[in-house]
Amino acid sequence: MRLDKCVTVDNVNQNLLRVRYAVRGPILERAEQIERELEKGVAKPFECVVRANIGDCHALGQKPITFIRQVVALAACPQLLASPDFPEDAKRRARDLLDDCIESSVGAYSPSAGLALVRADAAAYMRARDGAPASPEDVYLGSGASDLIKAVLTMFVENVSGKPPAVMIPIPQYPLFSGTLAELGLVQVDYYLDEERGWALDVGELERSLRGASAGCHVRALVIINPGNPTGQVLTRQNMEEIVKFAYEHGLFLLADEVYQENIISKPFHSFKKVMHEMGPPYSQMELASFMTLSKGWAAECGLRAGLVELVRLQAGVAAAFRSARAVMQCPTVLGQCALHCVVRPPRAGEPSHEQFARERRGVHRALTERAAAAHSTFNSIPGYSCNSIDGSMFAFPRIELPESAQRAARDCGLLPDEFYCLRLLEETGVCVIPGSGFGQRPGTWHFRTTILHTRDQFQHMMDSIRRFHLQFLQQYP
Amino acid sequence: MRLDKCVTVDNVNQNLLRVRYAVRGPILERAEQIERELEKGVAKPFECVVRANIGDCHALGQKPITFIRQVVALAACPQLLASPDFPEDAKRRARDLLDDCIESSVGAYSPSAGLALVRADAAAYMRARDGAPASPEDVYLGSGASDLIKAVLTMFVENVSGKPPAVMIPIPQYPLFSGTLAELGLVQVDYYLDEERGWALDVGELERSLRGASAGCHVRALVIINPGNPTGQVLTRQNMEEIVKFAYEHGLFLLADEVYQENIISKPFHSFKKVMHEMGPPYSQMELASFMTLSKGWAAECGLRAGLVELVRLQAGVAAAFRSARAVMQCPTVLGQCALHCVVRPPRAGEPSHEQFARERRGVHRALTERAAAAHSTFNSIPGYSCNSIDGSMFAFPRIELPESAQRAARDCGLLPDEFYCLRLLEETGVCVIPGSGFGQRPGTWHFRTTILHTRDQFQHMMDSIRRFHLQFLQQYP
Repeated sequence: MRLDKCVTVDNVNQNLLRVRYAVRGPILERAEQIERELEKGVAKPFECVVRANIGDCHALGQKPITFIRQVVALAACPQLLASPDFPEDAKRRARDLLDDCIESSVGAYSPSAGLALVRADAAAYMRARDGAPASPEDVYLGSGASDLIKAVLTMFVENVSGKPPAVMIPIPQYPLFSGTLAELGLVQVDYYLDEERGWALDVGELERSLRGASAGCHVRALVIINPGNPTGQVLTRQNMEEIVKFAYEHGLFLLADEVYQENIISKPFHSFKKVMHEMGPPYSQMELASFMTLSKGWAAECGLRAGLVELVRLQAGVAAAFRSARAVMQCPTVLGQCALHCVVRPPRAGEPSHEQFARERRGVHRALTERAAAAHSTFNSIPGYSCNSIDGSMFAFPRIELPESAQRAARDCGLLPDEFYCLRLLEETGVCVIPGSGFGQRPGTWHFRTTILHTRDQFQHMMDSIRRFHLQFLQQYP
Repeated sequence: MRLDKCVTVDNVNQNLLRVRYAVRGPILERAEQIERELEKGVAKPFECVVRANIGDCHALGQKPITFIRQVVALAACPQLLASPDFPEDAKRRARDLLDDCIESSVGAYSPSAGLALVRADAAAYMRARDGAPASPEDVYLGSGASDLIKAVLTMFVENVSGKPPAVMIPIPQYPLFSGTLAELGLVQVDYYLDEERGWALDVGELERSLRGASAGCHVRALVIINPGNPTGQVLTRQNMEEIVKFAYEHGLFLLADEVYQENIISKPFHSFKKVMHEMGPPYSQMELASFMTLSKGWAAECGLRAGLVELVRLQAGVAAAFRSARAVMQCPTVLGQCALHCVVRPPRAGEPSHEQFARERRGVHRALTERAAAAHSTFNSIPGYSCNSIDGSMFAFPRIELPESAQRAARDCGLLPDEFYCLRLLEETGVCVIPGSGFGQRPGTWHFRTTILHTRDQFQHMMDSIRRFHLQFLQQYP
């Protein structure tokens, strides 16, 4: 007997039904609907939707770094190497990259782990950053860091002790983690960041979380997001040492999501690789996965899709298994790899493109720093709002006190209070931010995440809209 | 107590240890080693390695289609839109694609399923191909077809009947399937293609395979590769109708790997979408996943990484779950999407680029047709070789009779006879082909897969090398 459908919500992989990704969730769908309504001439109390849901710099008007795009265009269309319109160092770069492609074509597959030149210079970048050894053999390129984070998390899908495997993640977290754990069927074990201490990571809380989880599951790995997303804190060195010791003592594999390492605003960034190296044995012999991306930092080329992981000190058989699984997917995009090469090996002083490159990079950094300060002070000036200092990343994650009457109104609509708040904000101002519940938050607290990437005028408009909305909201729900 | 390593071959995801991907396996590793030896001046009985292991046209000297690369370069570097060196239709195309990118930047994320323009024209391509309705909503772009095949197979990972879920695949098959099933922990159920009848697909064999498997597992889906990889056959329409009826009767989800649909040599290609449509209800109401790619066909842009799946008539909740899981990975590379757009909507007669485009495309087709005929006749002229006609794809999969003495010699080395043969071929001639055991073959038969993509001289050299090697091999192992 033939069923109506072969695949139904009852017999499809049930993990897929549990995947949530708030950054592209219902709020964004409604925002897109509103955009279409505006196009059709539907009257709204605002002229356009302001997207602040996703860390997508170019979508918010940031201009690409000229050198990167020149290299990509030259690599795609080598006839342009004869054009006088491109600087010599961009041409040399494209030639070097093409020399590393089979038959000098970006249309040929690269090795699964990426072009040798890109991996070598990524290792050099890490050596310079950390003052620690780094080998190209440990660098794997992917289609964005997300692709690689999923590949690394896949290693832990194994019931080795009769208890389901689990991974510790911070709350609030970037929902790539919760979504990927759900898809892979790994248990998510939450530890809370301490909002009162600037989103610090308290090792006592790690201990509490691990202890609580250990009866029901087998925790295999610990995810740290530094700089924090959505929270924007940068870990202190001392805090990192405590975390490393914690992971060591409990035999946890450390996944360091360091994709915002080039978005540093006000506190120095230390990589886990460096801290472990400087701590010496046994910590310098621990396994580690550290992620970096083309999509963030000053390049912020989200659409080109490239990321990398440095995956160190794996057991040989484990590394071989990781490589096999990667090989089946062939290779990451070669043009993305070319762009990523420009990040790990940017133009240097004295090279023809350096001045323009340095100016463009400074511009990105200046805008980010300005917006971070403005977001911090604006949010802290709105009654009922509080916001920690934004030391890195490209987000603010303010906390909002929501009156009991508003919470009741939300429940009446079948929404969480922060969902209700963000949806009302969207409907009344066109500003699209993501409710804190999409990232996780301490029960009873409410937040939203907004990007701080808009141009100055857009940003001011957004801040004004949020303030005005909130004051009205408080009148409506006293 | 702290273990030496957190992750070991004993506690890593055991599925990863089972992943094999022969196309990038031990033979290729040895080939790369030999290349390095040659560079160092080690004497060999040949001057260079001839890679015939992977369907990578550009790596074998095929030149890219000019229009595709122009569009990609223009989209990456929009300043070039002012240059007189690009034809107007390439500029218009790049502008249309940029108009579909947020803030006109390929550096912004696209929607997870891909740019609206690319999905719309992909649907138009399918309507024109099939004379059947096609909706952009059913088209999902990915980082190559592999990425999407894995995503679709993930839907079947669920134990719904107390028996482990399973997927039927042809033998011989493309090892993406066996590798991905292994990683996902899906049971692989083999059905054999009939070598004696030109690799035809016999429905009796499908019935036999399903019956045999059903006691131990729950078969959820049926994979068909058409045109065949590694086998190069193109299914007849009548055969396809039988397959559709078989899938219908047994409630199997049909995955049609149709990535070689633009590599048609001597027999007409019909898509499963078209055949099902023309069969009418109930077959025209069945679910279907049909895959296409930028990496094959006349474009053959492997390194740019783009593919698509048309995923039709899914239950709404299932489609939503599929979309959620895709959203977590953000989006496929936008430049790859731009290139794929040129495949589903190539230059048309009367447009400035059409003549050059048509000439380049004809050149690719002519070379493939010539090589297919030459491979077929050469292989059938070597004693002990037999090779079916190559009607589509870019591979030959000749069968080789290996003398008992050679089989013993292989066993003495701990190798399968076809591995031994291919390794000897590599060591003595530099020709790198993949043993049939990497794809699967009827027990007791031996094959290898070679690409037929080389330039005429290279190809002749390869054929001569194989013939000479084989005759010597027969003298050594009579």
